[in-house]
Amino acid sequence: MPVGRIYKLYFSPNRKYVKVLKNLLGFVPGNLSLYRLAFRHKSAAQNVKKGVKNSNERLEFLGDAVLGSVVAEVLFKLYPYEDEGFLTELRSKIVSRNNLNQLARKLGFEQLIEYDNRALGPTRQGSLLGDAFEALIGAVYLDKGYDFTKSFLVNNIIKAHVDIHTLEQTETNFKSKLIEWCQRHSKDITFDLVENGDGENTKLFTVQASVDGQIMGLGKEFSKKNAEKLAAEKACEALGI
Amino acid sequence: MPVGRIYKLYFSPNRKYVKVLKNLLGFVPGNLSLYRLAFRHKSAAQNVKKGVKNSNERLEFLGDAVLGSVVAEVLFKLYPYEDEGFLTELRSKIVSRNNLNQLARKLGFEQLIEYDNRALGPTRQGSLLGDAFEALIGAVYLDKGYDFTKSFLVNNIIKAHVDIHTLEQTETNFKSKLIEWCQRHSKDITFDLVENGDGENTKLFTVQASVDGQIMGLGKEFSKKNAEKLAAEKACEALGI
Repeated sequence: MPVGRIYKLYFSPNRKYVKVLKNLLGFVPGNLSLYRLAFRHKSAAQNVKKGVKNSNERLEFLGDAVLGSVVAEVLFKLYPYEDEGFLTELRSKIVSRNNLNQLARKLGFEQLIEYDNRALGPTRQGSLLGDAFEALIGAVYLDKGYDFTKSFLVNNIIKAHVDIHTLEQTETNFKSKLIEWCQRHSKDITFDLVENGDGENTKLFTVQASVDGQIMGLGKEFSKKNAEKLAAEKACEALGI
Repeated sequence: MPVGRIYKLYFSPNRKYVKVLKNLLGFVPGNLSLYRLAFRHKSAAQNVKKGVKNSNERLEFLGDAVLGSVVAEVLFKLYPYEDEGFLTELRSKIVSRNNLNQLARKLGFEQLIEYDNRALGPTRQGSLLGDAFEALIGAVYLDKGYDFTKSFLVNNIIKAHVDIHTLEQTETNFKSKLIEWCQRHSKDITFDLVENGDGENTKLFTVQASVDGQIMGLGKEFSKKNAEKLAAEKACEALGI
């Protein structure tokens, strides 16, 4: 083991934090402040400059992009005969907030995230983990570069924790997702068939998905069922579900 | 110059294509078949397997992701005091179809793209160039790796052709974009204020943007103007403008 790593793990004043990270991630981190930043939710951040907080949100932006790129390549190579529509859909399942939250929980990120419980609504708490996961990818990228981040993601995360072939089979059912969410948050959900506009194809069905009376999504399809599905998908998007 | 490159440029049977690429891109490509694929629109592609065409669409998926990641890092470092909302918006301006089309035209990609004019509608033709640009990034990435692609994008493309600070100042005006598009395609565009749903905040304005009588976007905001802007943005998205 190189001397720098021995020092970090056994003698530096941060050795405890280094060990925790090494156990979670499987490698010895370089620039610790990046990792600290990755785990700091904005509710626990301080202003560093007018309007700028030292929270993990900027790292999340970067990590989201690097993750998207790595997953794109993995799928591109894993499915040489599938088209870009298939690849896009499968990637969005893998990097969905839901999936990243689960991943971060499995990896034990909960113990590391700094946040202020009082400043968090019940809905935001749900994405804390996934947000930190993306921010961590941003930190690893800045600390170790693209190729390291790619092999970390592929070997320590995807191969170990993501069942791509099962995700491939799961069809995201936006309608039931939306209904469940409304039940959990005690909101009314209605799907209403509305009249088509002038000059519109008469075979088209237009469905509005409304949550507590507010139109949240609109779907137009050639079957009522598909119009409802589309309206539900748009509503999920608008509500960040 | 290494022997392999000398051979490629002066003696190989593909030397003409290699020279054209070198002039356009500024480097000697390795795996030529990747670059040929990047410039092949699906209208000129052949079936290689049931349902699979040798078009540039899969490379476009990969290149879009790599480009997003590189631009994310560039902006992350260029604007250390801006938040992720700012970074996200600026990136989407840089990688917008419109901007990539212009870039690809400046770079002279038109001479290289293989497509079948008869199979293309007038609207699709517009994104041929931008699509090929993304596919090219995918090809460079597979051929040369991430770090090479990053420095190619930063030095040969972004620094030379993208005026980030001007893009930063331009506010995308979706309403005028939508109106212009409708005029060009002889379509009616209306913005209608519609009634709010039951129990909805009475200060909210709901605006529908309809194109030829078809509702294409819905905006809800606390001012009529902003509701129109949002409805126009949604409509632009739905129409792929």
